[in-house]
Amino acid sequence: MQKKYNIGILGATGEVGRQMLKVLEEYQFPVGELRLFASKNSIGKSITFQGKEYFVTEAKPESFTHLDFVLGATSNDIARSYKDSIVKAKAIFIDNSSAFRLDKDIPLVIPEINPEDALKNKGVIANPNCSTILALMAIHGIEKLSKIQAMSVTTYQATSGAGALGPQELSEQMAAIVHNQKIEPHIFPYPIALNVIPQIGSFLDNGYTTEEMKMQNEGRKILHREDLNISCTCVRVPVVRSHSIAIELITEEELSIEAVKEAIQGHAGCRLYDDPEQKLYPMPLLTSNQDLVYVGRIRKSLLHSHGIVLWCSGDQVRKGAASNAVQIMMKLIGLEPLGGSIC
Amino acid sequence: MQKKYNIGILGATGEVGRQMLKVLEEYQFPVGELRLFASKNSIGKSITFQGKEYFVTEAKPESFTHLDFVLGATSNDIARSYKDSIVKAKAIFIDNSSAFRLDKDIPLVIPEINPEDALKNKGVIANPNCSTILALMAIHGIEKLSKIQAMSVTTYQATSGAGALGPQELSEQMAAIVHNQKIEPHIFPYPIALNVIPQIGSFLDNGYTTEEMKMQNEGRKILHREDLNISCTCVRVPVVRSHSIAIELITEEELSIEAVKEAIQGHAGCRLYDDPEQKLYPMPLLTSNQDLVYVGRIRKSLLHSHGIVLWCSGDQVRKGAASNAVQIMMKLIGLEPLGGSIC
Repeated sequence: MQKKYNIGILGATGEVGRQMLKVLEEYQFPVGELRLFASKNSIGKSITFQGKEYFVTEAKPESFTHLDFVLGATSNDIARSYKDSIVKAKAIFIDNSSAFRLDKDIPLVIPEINPEDALKNKGVIANPNCSTILALMAIHGIEKLSKIQAMSVTTYQATSGAGALGPQELSEQMAAIVHNQKIEPHIFPYPIALNVIPQIGSFLDNGYTTEEMKMQNEGRKILHREDLNISCTCVRVPVVRSHSIAIELITEEELSIEAVKEAIQGHAGCRLYDDPEQKLYPMPLLTSNQDLVYVGRIRKSLLHSHGIVLWCSGDQVRKGAASNAVQIMMKLIGLEPLGGSIC
Repeated sequence: MQKKYNIGILGATGEVGRQMLKVLEEYQFPVGELRLFASKNSIGKSITFQGKEYFVTEAKPESFTHLDFVLGATSNDIARSYKDSIVKAKAIFIDNSSAFRLDKDIPLVIPEINPEDALKNKGVIANPNCSTILALMAIHGIEKLSKIQAMSVTTYQATSGAGALGPQELSEQMAAIVHNQKIEPHIFPYPIALNVIPQIGSFLDNGYTTEEMKMQNEGRKILHREDLNISCTCVRVPVVRSHSIAIELITEEELSIEAVKEAIQGHAGCRLYDDPEQKLYPMPLLTSNQDLVYVGRIRKSLLHSHGIVLWCSGDQVRKGAASNAVQIMMKLIGLEPLGGSIC
């Protein structure tokens, strides 16, 4: 009989928590006991998983005994407050918050890129930032051909990156526009329907946002490339799901476009989607509700003979968050997801 | 008495043509005779300008006699077919199509950047591509401080860049989504509501689109910098009006952020709009229906000590097309627009 694993989910009723449950179901993950935790507002709610009804409870320090894994889909504060209890209970905490991502003792893992780091965990593994996961997935095949020297990145980030209330606000604003009503933003600092907003996160002294700096800070740690420089501009766009990212990069050696395409096609978790003549290129429209990062528009930079320009889209709630966390767990126990979503 | 000028508009009923009329009115341009030309479908339509009613006619080779200027807001083919007749009639043809932009004998002009080129015209002046105008306006102050060596550009282009039918399609698609109806794209290759499309124009052999190559080809001509390399990714976003552009550039010498901000603030036609702490940065929401190019999010690149990253937004139907054409005309006759829109 297949071994089953006892799983807890912190923040089970949020955007990422619900997606984690969906992914566990889709992957037919061998779940034994399942404990769903959420904030006070959600206590008592029921969620059906693999045909069985589960009730949401509030996590307490003693809630984690006999769990194999706890998947975290909460804020940094909540993640921090439960970490020690989870580790003490000998469960492995795979956390999607940014609380521990840059902690030297905690691996930051994309399973297709640095699975070996996951094995060095001391009870906690951090799940990277969503845009960082998608961008690194797109360029890692290139990095393996020849070291990337520098990367200029701009993002087109979907509203669901701000949680379930993001798309709800976009949807309400679209309806208001269609019915000629007034818009009052709550989640985003300005109306997002018919607009783009060049701010995600808060501003740092260097003029970059917290979100923009994640690309370089987390990218360096995941790729083990402390020397890698990444400039990033993060922009919110009126899209429900799937971030898109434009990348221009320079490699140590000159690469042919054919070699780059082959590397991307051969990279687990990537789909080369690059036939401009047939109007085939990655778009949010195509890449939502699945795990692959689509990569296309691959061409030589006009700035540098060693330069490559490309464009990618991927579902940031799945591969950028929930699926990546579940895939880390599967790597640890030596399971491959059914349907080959990871490769 | 102020001298008046006889003006013809080719394509007077289209998005840019109508905007040209609006700009002429707003600037209180001294229009003498006004002749409005359009395609067969629009003949007989009436348009009110400065309180007087004008009827649209079809342009014939002999339609341009006694005109001082013809503003072109048509396709390349139509622009080409009338060019010689306009020049023969001794009117100056200021054309917004891309037909003549790279012609060596025809100046390509942004009046705040290369007004001297306009004076060398032999009867025809080309109005540059909309994104190119906005991007060059944003960076020209920097170029004057220290030569730009390379520029990586990504755009967030509004649907009105595709003519009046673009925003109409977006609006119809938004209504369809709100009312749970099916979407069938006509103007754009895919649904644009809740999506972003990394294709504007058609694809060239080097993998770039025609729209993307305009940034480098036209930028070199306008700045008189045949050595300037610009890599560009152009993306359509669900916005009605105003393109936004992310730019990362490297200058010959290292510049301080203060010097860059001062140069942009002092540049005619630009508005420095850069106070992140107060959430003040350029957005389509702010920059539509006016002529200034808003520039913000100015910061040091993380890739190069001589690198600058910035973000700009501007109304591409106005400064990116109609206003720029009218401003060229005003430069030629030594008029400044009322209200200081140009400076």
